[in-house]
Amino acid sequence: MVFSINNFFDRKNKKSIIADFQDLEHLDGISISAVSAGLYEKKRDDLVLFYFRDGANYASVFTQSKIISENIKWNQKIDSKKLTALLVNTRNANALTGSNGFKSLKELSLDLSKNLSDKQMMDEDCPKKISPNEIMFACTGTIGEKFPVDKIKKSIPDLIQKIKYTQNKLIWMKAALGIMTTDTKPKLSMSECKIGSTKVKIYGIAKGSGMIFPNMATTLGFLFTDAKLPSSVLKQILKKNIETTFNAISCDGDTSTNDMVTIFSTNKANNPIIKKPKDTKLKKFNDSVHEVLLNLAKSVTADGEGASKFITINCKNCRTLKEAKKISFSIANSLLVKTAFAGEDPNWGRIAMAIGKSSAKVNINKLSILIGPFKVLIKGNLSENYDEIKVSDYMKNDSINLTIDLGLGDKKFTAYTTDLTKKYVEINADYRT
Amino acid sequence: MVFSINNFFDRKNKKSIIADFQDLEHLDGISISAVSAGLYEKKRDDLVLFYFRDGANYASVFTQSKIISENIKWNQKIDSKKLTALLVNTRNANALTGSNGFKSLKELSLDLSKNLSDKQMMDEDCPKKISPNEIMFACTGTIGEKFPVDKIKKSIPDLIQKIKYTQNKLIWMKAALGIMTTDTKPKLSMSECKIGSTKVKIYGIAKGSGMIFPNMATTLGFLFTDAKLPSSVLKQILKKNIETTFNAISCDGDTSTNDMVTIFSTNKANNPIIKKPKDTKLKKFNDSVHEVLLNLAKSVTADGEGASKFITINCKNCRTLKEAKKISFSIANSLLVKTAFAGEDPNWGRIAMAIGKSSAKVNINKLSILIGPFKVLIKGNLSENYDEIKVSDYMKNDSINLTIDLGLGDKKFTAYTTDLTKKYVEINADYRT
Repeated sequence: MVFSINNFFDRKNKKSIIADFQDLEHLDGISISAVSAGLYEKKRDDLVLFYFRDGANYASVFTQSKIISENIKWNQKIDSKKLTALLVNTRNANALTGSNGFKSLKELSLDLSKNLSDKQMMDEDCPKKISPNEIMFACTGTIGEKFPVDKIKKSIPDLIQKIKYTQNKLIWMKAALGIMTTDTKPKLSMSECKIGSTKVKIYGIAKGSGMIFPNMATTLGFLFTDAKLPSSVLKQILKKNIETTFNAISCDGDTSTNDMVTIFSTNKANNPIIKKPKDTKLKKFNDSVHEVLLNLAKSVTADGEGASKFITINCKNCRTLKEAKKISFSIANSLLVKTAFAGEDPNWGRIAMAIGKSSAKVNINKLSILIGPFKVLIKGNLSENYDEIKVSDYMKNDSINLTIDLGLGDKKFTAYTTDLTKKYVEINADYRT
Repeated sequence: MVFSINNFFDRKNKKSIIADFQDLEHLDGISISAVSAGLYEKKRDDLVLFYFRDGANYASVFTQSKIISENIKWNQKIDSKKLTALLVNTRNANALTGSNGFKSLKELSLDLSKNLSDKQMMDEDCPKKISPNEIMFACTGTIGEKFPVDKIKKSIPDLIQKIKYTQNKLIWMKAALGIMTTDTKPKLSMSECKIGSTKVKIYGIAKGSGMIFPNMATTLGFLFTDAKLPSSVLKQILKKNIETTFNAISCDGDTSTNDMVTIFSTNKANNPIIKKPKDTKLKKFNDSVHEVLLNLAKSVTADGEGASKFITINCKNCRTLKEAKKISFSIANSLLVKTAFAGEDPNWGRIAMAIGKSSAKVNINKLSILIGPFKVLIKGNLSENYDEIKVSDYMKNDSINLTIDLGLGDKKFTAYTTDLTKKYVEINADYRT
C-alpha cells in the first residue's frame, strides 16, 4: 500500500523516473467534475468541483503567511457545520486583488450554491437549500492579477452538468491534473483501514512543486474519507499529522499566500461513533491519514523544478522538537548543502555549517553525522573509517538519507527536500518572460 | 572618496564590470608580509602577517554560528590588552579539526611570538618580549581537514624576513590577494578624516563572496587605523557599524564557522585623547569606519558567484528595527525573488510573498512596493500608473533598488544582496569535483 518515493528517483534500479501514483476509485458521498473555464491560453481543465451531496464534515490548515489570498480569507470565515462543495481554480491566485477579489468569491458562492440547490431539487428525494457559506474555495496561480470571475461563473452550468455520482480512477486523475499549475506530475494517494470492524477509505490529491514553483509555489492538498467522523476529530488528526508531513517538506523556505490542506469526511461509512480524537479505535485511521499526507507531501517535494535528488534529513537526539526542526530545516534550506547534493559531493562541512547556523544548541563533542549508512563525523571527530570514495559513490543515488545525531536529548524530526540544480534557476528566472 | 558599488555592475554606462578598488598607502605602526606556505597545489600567497611593532588596540566581532572554528575559539580567549600580530591563512579553515586544531594554533603562536621577539631584539631600541597571547589568527578554507601546521610553521622565518616597515599600495594589494579563497576580486577600501584637528586614516581589506563561496563562504574583514583610540571605543564603534554593513549583506543566508571582522588601531596619530565612544570628536571617524565597512561589505556581496545584479532592499516605516530586518532579509534570501531578478522579471508577487512569510506584522492596506522609482503597489492596490514595460526595462540595470513601505511606524533597514543565477549553482555544485 505504501507509495514509495524512491519510484521517482530510481536510476540505480533502472526504473523510470516517472511518478507512480495510486488509482483512486469510488468513494461514497463525493462527486467530482472538471472543466476548462478558459483561464489558460491553451485549453486545459482549470476548474475542479468537489461536490458533497449530503454535506461533509471538514477541517483545514492554512498558510502561515502574513499576506493571504482572498480565498483563504473567505475560507477562514466559513462557519457552516458542513460543507457542500470545494471549488478549485488554477491560473489565478486571487491574492493581492483587494476587495474585488473577495467580492468575486461572494458572487461565485451565490451562483454555485444556487445552481447546486437547483440540481438537488431535480435529483434528490429530500432536496435541501445550499447556503453560500457551505462553499470552500482553493485558488492557485499568478498573484496580483484581476480574478477572472466572469469566466469562472460562465463555466458553472457546464461544471454542474458534468457531475457524476459514481467516481472512478479517470475522474480522480482528471481532478488531480485539473488542479495542477506547473507541476510535472499529478499527485494521488490512498489508504484503506478499519475503524472498529468497518473498512474506510482515505483518498488524497495534491498540487505543488516543492513549494517553489513560479506561480508562488502554492501547495494544495485535499483528503477525502467516507468515515463517519465529526469535524472536531478531523481537525485534531489533521493538525497532528500535518506537522510531520506537509510541514516537514521544504525546497527553498518560501511560503505561499494560498497554501491550504483540507480533509473532508462524507460520513457514508458505518463505523462506530467516534467523539474524541484520542479514541483508540482511530489508531489505524490516524496512521492511514499520515501515510496519505506523507505520500502527497513527498510527491510535492519530489516535483520541485529541476530536482534530481530526494533528500531525507533525520535529526535525532535533540534537546527539543523545536531545535530538531530548526536544524533539519537549516540543512534543508541551505543553498550550499543543496548545491553540494546536486554535485554529488559529500561536502559534510556544509552540513556542519548549516547545523551551526540554525541557532539550536550544539555540543560539537557530541555531534555525529551520517551520510546514508556511512559515519562521517563521530562525536566531533572525523570517522577513522571515513572513505570519501564510498560516500561519493553513495551520493550518486537519487534518494539520499542524512542522519544528524545531536547527542543532547531524545527529540527527533525528519525533513524532506531536494537538491538545487541549474535547471531550478533556469525555470524560475525565465518564468513569465 | 566613496567607492561606488555601481562600478561593479555598470553595463548601461558601458563601464567595465571589474572591481574598482582603492589604493592604500603607508599607515604608521603596521607592517605586512605575505608568502606562499604551499597550502594550495598551485603556488600562490596563502599566508599573510600583519605585524604591529608597538602593539595595537583592537576589537572584533565573530560569527554567530554555534559551530565555530578553532581559531575563533583561540581569538575569543585572548585577553592581552594589545595585539602584536594577526596571522591569516587560507585553504584550511581549522574548523571541526578537534583538539589538534587548537593545539596547532598554540604551537604557531609560540613559534611566531618567539620569532617576532627575536626580530625586535635585532631591530628595536626598546625590544619587548612578545607573548603568544598577543597573536590573533584568521583561517579560511575547507573545514574538517587536518590543519597544515607544519607547512605554516616552516614559512614563519620567510614571513618575518619579508616584513618591511614602510607599506605601499603593492603590499596592501598582495595582502588583499593573499587572504582570498575563491573571491574573484581583491577588496580594499579606505577613508580619511579628522579627530579634532588631526588627520587619521582608516584602511580596510576583506575577503568573501556574498557569504556563499564553496569553502564555507567565510567572510573576513580587517580594518586598520593610525588613530589613537582605546579598545573599548573601537569595540563600540565596530559593534554599532557592523549592523548596517557586514550584518546587512546576505546572499543565501548561510553563515560560516570562521567569520570575523577586526579593527586595529596603531595609536600613531596625535589625535586628542578619546575615552568615550560618544565623544562628539569621533563623529567623522565613526562615519569613515562606516564607509569603509560598507564598501567592503558591498564588495563581498557583489562578488557572489555568478551574481549579475546588485540589489539594495530599503525597508521603511516599520514598527520595529527587528521587523524591518526580518522583512529585508526575507526578501534578500528568497530564491523566488532572487531568480526573478536574474530573469529581469518584475515579479512583484514574489516580493509580496517574501514580505508575507517574514513573520513581521503586515497590514496589506498600508503596504507599498517600489521597484526603482516605479510605484508598483500603493497601500495594497496595484498602482494605476503601473507600466510593466517600463519596470521591465528598469530590471535590466545591474544595480536595482527595492523600496518596501510598511506604513506602520518609523523604523527602517537596508539590506544588500545579489540575484541567483545558473552560474551560482554550477560553481557550488562542481566545487571539489
